[in-house]
Amino acid sequence: MICELDRLLLERTYELGARGIGNTSPNPPVGALVARGGCILGEGFHHYAGEAHAEVNALAAAGDARGATLYVSLEPCKHIGQTPPCTQAVREAGIARVVIGALDPTKHGGGADELRREGITVEVADDASARELIEVFAHTIESDRAFVALKMAMSLDGYVTSRPGVAEWITSEEERLFVRELRVACDAVMVGAGTVRVDDPQLTVRPPAQRLRQFQRIVVCERDAVPPDRRIFAEVPGYGRTIILAPGGSRARFRGLEAVADVIYVGTQEQELDLAHALRMLRARGIYSVLCEGGPTLAARLIVLGLVDRFYWAIAPLLLRSEAAVPVLAGVELNGGPRRVQFDRIERIGADALLYGRFLDV
Amino acid sequence: MICELDRLLLERTYELGARGIGNTSPNPPVGALVARGGCILGEGFHHYAGEAHAEVNALAAAGDARGATLYVSLEPCKHIGQTPPCTQAVREAGIARVVIGALDPTKHGGGADELRREGITVEVADDASARELIEVFAHTIESDRAFVALKMAMSLDGYVTSRPGVAEWITSEEERLFVRELRVACDAVMVGAGTVRVDDPQLTVRPPAQRLRQFQRIVVCERDAVPPDRRIFAEVPGYGRTIILAPGGSRARFRGLEAVADVIYVGTQEQELDLAHALRMLRARGIYSVLCEGGPTLAARLIVLGLVDRFYWAIAPLLLRSEAAVPVLAGVELNGGPRRVQFDRIERIGADALLYGRFLDV
Repeated sequence: MICELDRLLLERTYELGARGIGNTSPNPPVGALVARGGCILGEGFHHYAGEAHAEVNALAAAGDARGATLYVSLEPCKHIGQTPPCTQAVREAGIARVVIGALDPTKHGGGADELRREGITVEVADDASARELIEVFAHTIESDRAFVALKMAMSLDGYVTSRPGVAEWITSEEERLFVRELRVACDAVMVGAGTVRVDDPQLTVRPPAQRLRQFQRIVVCERDAVPPDRRIFAEVPGYGRTIILAPGGSRARFRGLEAVADVIYVGTQEQELDLAHALRMLRARGIYSVLCEGGPTLAARLIVLGLVDRFYWAIAPLLLRSEAAVPVLAGVELNGGPRRVQFDRIERIGADALLYGRFLDV
Repeated sequence: MICELDRLLLERTYELGARGIGNTSPNPPVGALVARGGCILGEGFHHYAGEAHAEVNALAAAGDARGATLYVSLEPCKHIGQTPPCTQAVREAGIARVVIGALDPTKHGGGADELRREGITVEVADDASARELIEVFAHTIESDRAFVALKMAMSLDGYVTSRPGVAEWITSEEERLFVRELRVACDAVMVGAGTVRVDDPQLTVRPPAQRLRQFQRIVVCERDAVPPDRRIFAEVPGYGRTIILAPGGSRARFRGLEAVADVIYVGTQEQELDLAHALRMLRARGIYSVLCEGGPTLAARLIVLGLVDRFYWAIAPLLLRSEAAVPVLAGVELNGGPRRVQFDRIERIGADALLYGRFLDV
């Protein structure tokens, strides 16, 4: 039985877990706390891959935890990795009961059953918030490519800008702060070549995020190279060299960029970038999650290829309709009729509307 | 001083007032109740123009109201119209205190000051919900044309249909039920000629709404006539003949429709419909509020001309992007750069997102 107090304390573990977002990759962010008789004895979260797990930090903070309940956002592990198994730490601490937010999605699972066999009471809430916290991690287990979150912003009538080649901020300050949070939560931020040519973004966050290592910056060149004098290639303290994804058959055209960027050639013969292949290469380099910030061509291609795992779609309070206006998706047709979408959340953010969701049928 | 109980009872008057929506035009919907010591003695609302006002109905239901408080969504009137002034009824009933949701927006105002002079305590909440209830009425006072609410529905990428000439339901059942509510609340429902040609809607509600008189149905023909065999021209029990708004200089082209519809010729020489003039003519015929259900051309024209007073913009969970897809606004350019919009409310409705708001800069 999970009571109201249990739910409250579980919610707290999600807050704690979220503090690790951006640093734990490829591990998931996890939060934990130890409580007895309604009092929190100690709290902890997973800081960095290779360091102590959340449960171990919470138990250390609690001191004497005999007979207490451990609340943890994700099922404790039973495997020996870079640190000893958490099930062992739980048992040794004399914990009587464990309340879990979400089960471990890995093939061999976590240690819930093992704890039960030890006579410890185990409850599993299977909360949506707990699953959201490990969404990228769960994807990492099932897929061999980087997780892709797509961030778009359009006017109420469906355009990103009033004419091609014009950089315009159409969303509110609050929405841009939200994008900053999204960037900081991912291993990398990605834009298309068109965005680099037109908007010329730096793709950093100011002030720099409290991360052990800043997110990487990626430019997707589906065909042609971009000018090397763009701001994204300028050195910024704390940030690594920008990555360029280029088609492997076009090395000559990208040679000039090798001085300012880390050019990854995808495939060998291709004149056009194989996006799925590129995302697999990113994952192989330790980039497990990517925030794609458009533009319309790259977004449409990713959607058509079924490579978007989650979207954040902002609607700015203005109309941009004109013959020259650039629609939010461009360049490719969505073959096979309408593509279904699911809205997970609908919110106001500043003066804008923000729709969270995912594409179905992919 | 307005206390929490006052606010609760005022909210109740808005609920009561809303029961009259669709029947009170050109009067506003108004709700009222009489309470003493936290007990509601009687409730009432304004049913139909020409019949008793909400205050009078509430006082009648209350019986002995001496020393009681009257709660009313709109400031009581002081004028002699089709019924005696409400201030007189309030005074005669021995009401000690009056709590008002919104002030009367008419030029000479309502009876709040008059009541104060009689020694009655008067409090004014000036609530957004109270003002929303009289939005059409307030517009009616300030403007000489019908109030226009615009209802649009588009895909997440900004299209109303995947190709021209195709009628598709893109929104959810819940969203369509909501549109039914909107239709019932207005004096008339209006569509463009393109919608009649392609979607061929009947524009009725099933089951028929509990209204004294059904809303009218209007087809806007900006230039060309529509075929007379469309469903909107078929007789439906309870509904009047459909109105056609036609340019006054094109009588010959519309003559054939006079057998099936009530054709209003706007102006005398014009080959193209003057929409502002048409809305003035509607108001002169007693149509004070119109729900425009698109399509893209009529919507864009109304927006460009500054003739939309409120919008309901549904976003359906699908993508329709293709070269043939029809954008949500079409046919005209929004001159003078981006047009600003304000979102008043952002909600989920079924599987869709629904944005309520108004266009600024007009």
